[in-house]
Amino acid sequence: MINDIEIIKTKTSKINEVDFDNLKFGSVFSDHMLECNFKDGKWQAPKVLPYQPIVLDPSAKIFHYGQSIFEGMKAYKDVDENVWLFRPLDNFKRLNISAKRLAIPELPENYFMDGLKALLEVDQEWIPKKDGSSLYIRPFVFASGNGFHASPADEYKFIICTAPSGAYFAGEVRVLIEEKYSRSANGGVGFAKAGGNYAGQFYPTQLAIDKGYQQVIWTDDNTHEYIEEAGAMNIFIRINDTLITGPTSDRILDGITRKSIIELAKKEGINVEVRKITVSEVVEAAKNGSLKEMFGAGTAAVISPIAGFGYKDADYELPKLDETYASFLKKRITDIQTNKAEDIFGWRYQV
Amino acid sequence: MINDIEIIKTKTSKINEVDFDNLKFGSVFSDHMLECNFKDGKWQAPKVLPYQPIVLDPSAKIFHYGQSIFEGMKAYKDVDENVWLFRPLDNFKRLNISAKRLAIPELPENYFMDGLKALLEVDQEWIPKKDGSSLYIRPFVFASGNGFHASPADEYKFIICTAPSGAYFAGEVRVLIEEKYSRSANGGVGFAKAGGNYAGQFYPTQLAIDKGYQQVIWTDDNTHEYIEEAGAMNIFIRINDTLITGPTSDRILDGITRKSIIELAKKEGINVEVRKITVSEVVEAAKNGSLKEMFGAGTAAVISPIAGFGYKDADYELPKLDETYASFLKKRITDIQTNKAEDIFGWRYQV
Repeated sequence: MINDIEIIKTKTSKINEVDFDNLKFGSVFSDHMLECNFKDGKWQAPKVLPYQPIVLDPSAKIFHYGQSIFEGMKAYKDVDENVWLFRPLDNFKRLNISAKRLAIPELPENYFMDGLKALLEVDQEWIPKKDGSSLYIRPFVFASGNGFHASPADEYKFIICTAPSGAYFAGEVRVLIEEKYSRSANGGVGFAKAGGNYAGQFYPTQLAIDKGYQQVIWTDDNTHEYIEEAGAMNIFIRINDTLITGPTSDRILDGITRKSIIELAKKEGINVEVRKITVSEVVEAAKNGSLKEMFGAGTAAVISPIAGFGYKDADYELPKLDETYASFLKKRITDIQTNKAEDIFGWRYQV
Repeated sequence: MINDIEIIKTKTSKINEVDFDNLKFGSVFSDHMLECNFKDGKWQAPKVLPYQPIVLDPSAKIFHYGQSIFEGMKAYKDVDENVWLFRPLDNFKRLNISAKRLAIPELPENYFMDGLKALLEVDQEWIPKKDGSSLYIRPFVFASGNGFHASPADEYKFIICTAPSGAYFAGEVRVLIEEKYSRSANGGVGFAKAGGNYAGQFYPTQLAIDKGYQQVIWTDDNTHEYIEEAGAMNIFIRINDTLITGPTSDRILDGITRKSIIELAKKEGINVEVRKITVSEVVEAAKNGSLKEMFGAGTAAVISPIAGFGYKDADYELPKLDETYASFLKKRITDIQTNKAEDIFGWRYQV
C-alpha cells in the first residue's frame, strides 16, 4: 500500500538510451528519484520526482561539516517479473542508527518504505532482468540547511536514487593490511554509514594501489593488530574449515550481507566464529597453510574473494580451491535474493 | 597583483539590507564568491561570480562520501580602511595538507591567494569597520564529480564565500570532558579540516548540552586520559603560571591561532609547555587550586575562556581572575590582526 505519495513523472524517459547488457556499477541513473525534505522541525511528505539536479546555497552545511549518511540496497526481478528487495527494514533501521550518531533527524518508517516502493513502481522498467544484474538503490540524507556555524543543520534532504547495475566483478583482489592509517576511532562514527568514513579511506587506498594492491584491510587504530574491515566491506577469514569475522563495534559496520552470511553459513553447518581476529594469526595461518580463504562482504559485490595479501613488506598468496565458501555462500545468498531458492529466513521482501 | 581572474559582478547588491551593527556569525553572505573547478585533470582558472546557488547531480560524491575540506580566515579593516589578513599562507598550506589526506587535488598557491584578493577587492565594502567585527572568510573544496562508486571524484569545486561577522562571544562556557565519544583516530583525518570531523562531533556535543554544558573537551579515543581539543578549537590550560597545550598529531589540528598563541606567549615571557596533558592532572590542579585558566583557541572566537568543566559526574569551577592570560593574549593577537600594534612576527598580510 502506497499512500499519499505525490508522483510527478518525467516527460522524457532516458531508458531507451541505456544498454542493459553492458551496465557498470552506479553510473547510469533511473528516470526518477524520491525526495523528502526536513524543515520546520519535521520530515515533510516524500515525493517521486524526475531525476534532477540538487540546488543548494554555498553555505549549506553538507559542503562544510560532512553531515551525511547513506544506505546501499538492491532490487531484483525474477523470471516472472516480480520485484524483490533484501531485508529492506534492516537498511531502514541502520539509516536511523547512522542518523542519530550524525545528529540528523530520524526518518519515519513509512516515508522510507512507502517512498521506496512508490519509486520502484514508477521506475520498474529500470530493474534489470539479466542474471547477476540488479537495480542498485541509494538512499541518502544530508544537511541542506545554511550557515557557517559548526552545528547541526535545521534542514535536511532525504533522497533515493537508483542505478541499474551489472554484476559487480572486481577481478583478482590483492589487499594490503594497513599498519599506519585507520578508518575509525573508538567512540567515533565507524559503525555508521557516514560519508566522512569513506572520504578518509581514499588516500590510504590510493597508496595501496600505488604499491600494486587493490584494497586496504583496515586494522584497529590503536595497535593495528586486529583486522576490522576490507575496504568498504566487512571481512571474513576461513582458517581450515572455520569461518571467522570480527564482532561489530563502534568501529565496525553492522553489515546486512555480513550478518546474512553468518546466519546462512551456520545453517549450512559451517563452523562460524564471531571474534576478534589478529593480523598475526592470519599471517601464521598463511604460513602454515591453514588459511584457506579471505573475502569481503557487502551489498554491491555481495562477496568479493581475496587472492592474496601484503603485510610488512611480505606477500602472501591464498590457495586456489575448487570449492570455496565464498562461491558457495554467494550463490546461496543471491539465489535467495533473486527468488531462485526457498527463503527460510524471511529475508526476501516482495515489492 | 591579481592576474587573469575573470570578475562577473552582481547587478543587485544586498549590502544595504545588512545591519552591520548587529551581525551574527556566518549567517549573512557577501555579494560575491570565488569559484574554481577541477576537471579534465586540472584546476581551471578561478572566477569571481555573484553569490549563487550550487547545482549538483544527486550522485555527486559530496553527498555520499564526504570528500570535503575547508578553512576559516578573517579579513579586518583598520581605521585607515586598509584591509588585513592574518597568516593567509598558513591557511593555504593547511588546505593542501587536508586536500592530500582526503584525496582531493591540491590547489595552486596563486589560485588561492590571487582569487582571495580579487574577491576581497570586489567585496571590500562588506568588510566591517566596527571594532571586534571582521569579514569571516570560508574557503572550501568538495567533490562535485558524479557516481556511486566509493572512490575519489574526478571533479571538484573550490569556492570562497565571505560573511561579515560581529564579535564572537559565546558567553560563559562550561565544558564536559568526554569519556566515551571521540573525534579522531590514530592514522585518521583528525589533523585535517575535513567536513566529516565536524559532523561526528554534533551528537556528543548535543548530549553535553543536554547535561547543561556548552561544549565537549575531546580526549584520545584509546584511553580518554589525554586532553586533545575543545569542541572545534585547540585547547590551552594554565596551571599556576605555565600555559600548556597538547602537541599536534594526526589527531589534533595544527591551529593557526594555537601556534600564534604559543609564539606570542613565549615572546611575552610566559612559560609555555607543548606536551600531552592528562585529564587527571587537570582534575588534580582544579582540586588543589593550581588550575588558573582553560581556554579554546581558533579563528572564529580567537580565544574562548572556559568557566568550568565536568568530569565523571563532578563539576569543577575555574577561578575568576582579574587578569587572565586569555584576555591578555586575545588583545595582543587581535591588536596585531587589526593593525593596532606592531607585528614583529610578520603575521599580518595587507591585501
